[in-house]
Amino acid sequence: MKRGDHGADGRITYRPIGYARTPYRPGSDTPYQPVHAVAEPDAFYIELRGEWAPALVEMERLAYLYVLAHVDRLEGAPEPLVRPPWHADRRVGLFASRSPRRPNPIALSVVRLLRISGTRLYTSCMDLFDGTPVLDIKPYLLTLDSKPDANDGWLEGETDREHLALHLAGIPHEDADHA
Amino acid sequence: MKRGDHGADGRITYRPIGYARTPYRPGSDTPYQPVHAVAEPDAFYIELRGEWAPALVEMERLAYLYVLAHVDRLEGAPEPLVRPPWHADRRVGLFASRSPRRPNPIALSVVRLLRISGTRLYTSCMDLFDGTPVLDIKPYLLTLDSKPDANDGWLEGETDREHLALHLAGIPHEDADHA
Repeated sequence: MKRGDHGADGRITYRPIGYARTPYRPGSDTPYQPVHAVAEPDAFYIELRGEWAPALVEMERLAYLYVLAHVDRLEGAPEPLVRPPWHADRRVGLFASRSPRRPNPIALSVVRLLRISGTRLYTSCMDLFDGTPVLDIKPYLLTLDSKPDANDGWLEGETDREHLALHLAGIPHEDADHA
Repeated sequence: MKRGDHGADGRITYRPIGYARTPYRPGSDTPYQPVHAVAEPDAFYIELRGEWAPALVEMERLAYLYVLAHVDRLEGAPEPLVRPPWHADRRVGLFASRSPRRPNPIALSVVRLLRISGTRLYTSCMDLFDGTPVLDIKPYLLTLDSKPDANDGWLEGETDREHLALHLAGIPHEDADHA
């Protein structure tokens, strides 16, 4: 099976291992981040290419996955400074943000794994348009990936964490703290 | 600035935004995962391409980063079943593992951000060979990315968590529980 290539000109070439299936289309209210509250058990899945079915052995015991996907339907070139969607005035560095408009537009989503059926991995909400090419799936491991001593960087102190979670996910809500 | 391309043939093309600088060379004892205990404050950094310097604004307040890199010096094609390095007999699905030998060999490392100097981001240990092309840097946000209800999947119950952390990182240790 072929791997991604790295040409002498610095170009790195990948191919999708499958596609994300979601209810989201360009122009619809797609969240910015996975929303675990969205409870549509069959609405979100990854359809893996058939050749990779054996690569799912022992996968069903995982609670969470990382999904790496190629953001393929986003207009406009990336800018080094971006505006958080809920801040008219603020600018932060692109690499300090989770903006999908990046030099290499790889989306990273932490999602719950609900069940596996053949080559379909049913997940909690993925913040991806329907048909988005998936590049990789990795186990999110408690021992490696959960960092209770992490912080929210420049987002800290802006608002309480529950409210911040709504902002980050792009969920409409009353913006009481900006009133 | 240019974004990754997605050709009609399904090929996705990226270019490095910079390179990882580490003490590790092919053949040396490179850990499998970031080892936070490695205390060489200037040994690990990402050298970002100069054009992206403004994209670091507000970055220094982050405790942790995701580093996405292209594993460019790994022999052999990926196999759907892989053997954990510390298990002679066990096979698990590639996507249930963090093996670097993947159809699209994107390494995902959670690292501490130590300081920023110009276009250099000094980090805790990165499990990457020196000169590995970096594809993206994202903020690891406590609110989004730390999942205390995650699990260790098929790795659970094998051993205690401290021991598992040594296995995952590839740190040599007394294997008392296999004695």
